Order: sequence, then C-alpha cells, then structure tokens
Amino acid sequence: MTRFGTTILLLACLSIAACQTPEDATRDVPQPVDPLPSWRDTASRQRILEFVKQVSTRTSGAYVEARDRIAVVDNDGTLWCEKPTYIQFDFIISLLRQQAERDASLATVQPYKAAREGDHAYFAALDHKGLFELLTTAQSGMTHEQFDRDVRAFTSGWSHPKYRKRCTQLTYQPMLELLALLRSNGFRIYIVTGGSTEFVRTISEETYKVDRANVVGTTQATRYELQGERVVLMRETALVGPVNDGPGKPVNLWQRIGRRPLVAIGNSDGDLEMMRMAHEPSRQSLAILVHHDDAEREYAYDKGAEKVLAAARKNDWVVIDMKREWTRVFSFDSR
Amino acid sequence: MTRFGTTILLLACLSIAACQTPEDATRDVPQPVDPLPSWRDTASRQRILEFVKQVSTRTSGAYVEARDRIAVVDNDGTLWCEKPTYIQFDFIISLLRQQAERDASLATVQPYKAAREGDHAYFAALDHKGLFELLTTAQSGMTHEQFDRDVRAFTSGWSHPKYRKRCTQLTYQPMLELLALLRSNGFRIYIVTGGSTEFVRTISEETYKVDRANVVGTTQATRYELQGERVVLMRETALVGPVNDGPGKPVNLWQRIGRRPLVAIGNSDGDLEMMRMAHEPSRQSLAILVHHDDAEREYAYDKGAEKVLAAARKNDWVVIDMKREWTRVFSFDSR
Repeated sequence: MTRFGTTILLLACLSIAACQTPEDATRDVPQPVDPLPSWRDTASRQRILEFVKQVSTRTSGAYVEARDRIAVVDNDGTLWCEKPTYIQFDFIISLLRQQAERDASLATVQPYKAAREGDHAYFAALDHKGLFELLTTAQSGMTHEQFDRDVRAFTSGWSHPKYRKRCTQLTYQPMLELLALLRSNGFRIYIVTGGSTEFVRTISEETYKVDRANVVGTTQATRYELQGERVVLMRETALVGPVNDGPGKPVNLWQRIGRRPLVAIGNSDGDLEMMRMAHEPSRQSLAILVHHDDAEREYAYDKGAEKVLAAARKNDWVVIDMKREWTRVFSFDSR
Repeated sequence: MTRFGTTILLLACLSIAACQTPEDATRDVPQPVDPLPSWRDTASRQRILEFVKQVSTRTSGAYVEARDRIAVVDNDGTLWCEKPTYIQFDFIISLLRQQAERDASLATVQPYKAAREGDHAYFAALDHKGLFELLTTAQSGMTHEQFDRDVRAFTSGWSHPKYRKRCTQLTYQPMLELLALLRSNGFRIYIVTGGSTEFVRTISEETYKVDRANVVGTTQATRYELQGERVVLMRETALVGPVNDGPGKPVNLWQRIGRRPLVAIGNSDGDLEMMRMAHEPSRQSLAILVHHDDAEREYAYDKGAEKVLAAARKNDWVVIDMKREWTRVFSFDSR
C-alpha cells in the first residue's frame, strides 16, 4: 500500500470511530458507572437492580412497556427525613404566626396564640381532626401562586434542629440515586405525599427532578374567580378526594394516573395500601420499604410502621435497613 | 492517487456522510415537510405556527421553558365530532341496556326500560341533573378495569349515524396535525373533557398519543377494597372535584397540573374559562377556538358557543372557521 493510501485508510478508520454513538460504545466497553454508589452490595440492592433490568429489557421474559413503568414514591420518611416533626407542620406554625402578625385580632385567639408563643403543648394536645382543621384553615384563603411563594419563603429559611440543614438537603442520597436509576430505565416517577400536594410541588422539580404535575398528595379544593381578564384560583379548606394516606393513596393514584404502579416505595403504615396496589397476579412488581434503624446517622423507629413491616416480611417485599445497606444517608455524610 | 487510495477516500467520505445526525442534515437542507398539511394558508395557521416557533426558540424574546409548554385541549367538538349526540351518551344507553339484560328486574324500570326500547323522548325530557344521575349511576358499581373493557367493547362496535365510521375515525385530521406540531415542539398535551375521564382514557393513547394520566375529565369517586392480596378499585356514583365544564375546567386542571396552560383549545362555552386560564399578563399565550361552520363536511352550529365566540372576538383569540381553513375535516375526506 502507498503511504498516501495508508493515510487515507487511517482517516477512514478514525471517521468511523468518531461516528460511533454512545449506544455502540457500550457494546464494546463495559460500563464502569455504579448507578447506586451509596448502596452496599446487599440482597436488596441486587433485587432492585435485577428487577429494573428485567422490566426494561425487551428480550427478558418480564419486559414491561414504558407506559406501564410507573414508580410511586412516598415523600416523608421515604425520600426525606420526617423526624422530629413533619417539615410541613413547622410550615403551618409559621403560617399561623404570619397570619396573626397581619391581623392583630387573631393574636390572642387559638391556634394563633399558641403559634406565636411557641406553645407546643397546645398542638400536641390536638387530635387528628383538630390538627387537620388547623392545616386546611391555615393553608386556605390565598391564591395558589401566593401559597407557592409562602412555601418557598418558609423552606428557604427553615433548618433542621439536629442537622442544621435545609429541607432539600435532608433527602436520602441513596434514594435520589434510586430515582435516577428508575428514570434512566424509562420509569415515570410520582411523588406520593400524605402532606399537601401544593407543598411538595414547590420542591419536586429541583429536588427530585419530578414535574409538579406528578406530585400526588392531599388536595384542598380550589375556587374559580375572574378578576378583570385574569383567572384567579383560590385555595379553600375543603378537600378534593380522600386524605392521601392509607387507602386514600391508591384511590388518588388511580384518579391521577389511571394505572397500577409497577414499583411502590414507602416507609410507614400509611404506605401499605399503595404498596399492595403494585401487586398484580399477571406480572412482576416491586414493593420497597425504607426501614429506619439508624439512630446514629438518622433516626431509629418502627412505631407507625408495624403493619407495613409485617406485610413486607409476609410478602417478601424488599426491606432496606438504612444502617446496614446505605454507605451514607445524606449527601453531607462522610462515606 | 492510486486506484486503491481513491477507493479508500470514497469510503471515508461515505462513512462521514453516514455519520451525519438528522440535526446536522437540517442545517444544510431546508425542511420541506409541512407540519399542518390539512390547513389552508390563513392568518390562523400563520399565528399558530409563529406562536409555537416563538415560545420554543431559545433566542426569541418570547421563549418559554419546556416545563411550562402545556397545551390543554377539549375533546368533544374540538378533537372529535360531537354531533348529533356526544358519543359517551350512546355508551350510557348501551350500558343501561346491558345492565337490564343482566338483571331482568330492571327491564321494566326507568331509565332501563327507555334504553331497551330506544325511547329517545324519555332521555330528551330529562333535565341536566337527571341526565347526570343517569350517567354516574350507569358508570358505577364495577372495577375500573371492567369499566375500561366495557368502554372498549362499546367503541369498537359503535359507528356514527351519518358517516358510518368508528369514533376514533371521527377525529379532526387538522387537529391531529396540530397536536403533533405541539408535541414536536416540546409541549405536553392534556385532553380536557366534559365527559368522564375514564371514558376518554380508553382512546387517548392510540388516538391522540396522550398518556392516560394526561386526560382530565369529570371524575367519579373510587372505593378501595382488598380482595385477598389484590387491591381492587371500584367506581362509585359521587364526583371528585367539580363537573369538568366551565369554571370546573381550570379548577380540575390546576389540581392535576399545578400550572397555567400556555395554549388552550376549545369549541364551546364550556371551554371559555379554560381558555381564559391561559392568559397571564407577564407572557404570551394562545387561545384557539374551533368554529363549526361546515354543514357539508361536518355540522354548522353556534348554539352553545355564543359566549366563547364573543370572548374570542373581544380578546383576539384564534378562531378557526373549519369550512374555509381546513382542506379536509376527517382523514377519510377527499382533499
């Protein structure tokens, strides 16, 4: 071959190499990237990876069409820390305080008085119904846009009493990795919160890469108003659909998605029915339970998770013992 | 150059040409494909094309982030033919007939008797409330999965009295092209029906390429049941949220999406509030009204659209006169 011919051949080879798409490349070189770097190599991790691979590989016997690859994921205690109190509870107190500041006549009336004075005993003594009325009342009477601003102002200023971190830093690093793994395998992810839909919507996009539309929570009614040419949507106290807890989760999920989830992830008894919803005799599904047993790095508690722990054992669901299975809980933990 | 060298050079050129991505190609060759081939070159068409281009071009002054590119589109009369009756009304009659067949004691009781005997006068005499009770009663008492099968069985057998075509063929070809244009420019599309969410969900994916989750309609409540290990979701008569018509549309849309739409498309007074919802002083938006003035190819009627036609003229919304602006209405029309 002439030198010129050799040069041209070399150029041809280079141009063919440059033409390879990322997909071609993976055929030759094994991918060294670990999709779950904060997970130890346990049976839970292996089952999750294997399930995700099976349902998203067209030639596997357990392949599931992309439109049915839906993951529903609880928020409090599953994606971020729910101790010592739900973050939204602190928000309600701050809302009540602000409302009392704007209207002096409220200052001496409950629950505004207790909120202003930091009277925790008052709130601790309320029953479920009382707490709920407090929540829906505090979170009504404004436009959805104003409420959105109220939540963002609160969350940007709030910090956790133990970690001194903002709420968006209190997400579990291994769970963010799991969301990314699901997403990269064609799953659509829904954040399913017992708290208010509109509260979690303010952080879902930046924190979880989940569109506001894919947050399913407890939903207060909306009132339509026309102000000049502009539609204004006001928050009301009544609920639309059931409280998004226990059997309310499958009910609201069906109404929002119109499908059963393929993967359901929770941490407490309020997630039990949602986790059962993934089960369908005709196909594989995956229920994952986050088990809080790490008193040192987070909190250790089975209270409120007794039923779902028992169901998980009975049905051979994946149970993640945080202490043993995660190399770190938060992104700020040393590894 | 040797013959061998020339051959290699040719191979190199070919491999470089094969390496071009579709994006590279568009840089050199102007795209001849018309995104709206069933539309005449009218002002409406130009405004739609210009708007879509502006909001999806990063360098335009009117660029809108992809997550805010949301289009909400009414179904009956906007995407498919709603005359001489709503297709879902025929479905209700067929459901009542089937229910009477399964339970002989119903055969002589109204409304089952009228359904069996084809007594149109009976149904015509019902007021709005009466019709609505009939609808929610007929569409309850079964699982969501069973209801889905019921609807599919009906739609696969139904044909239009004038066209003798199936309901999925009664979609407006120019509107399908518009949906495709929006989709290819990063819009997320929601089908917004005054009818039942679960009715339209059965056809949204195949017919409109819109996921079941993105159908927003009138929604009947769901009851949770556990049968063995399986969660069963039963349809009930009560509604969740308002009837999805008039002011109910913005209310339900906010609850489902948590955002204002950028594009709103309707055809009747029931769409007026939804179309107003797109308006936001801080940005451009687009409201489009489908105007039924084509008695020959479809139906001509302004009844029930008087208010929205007036609002469209006042607010300079895009009004599409089907007769003048569409080269064909249905895919089966000759062009």
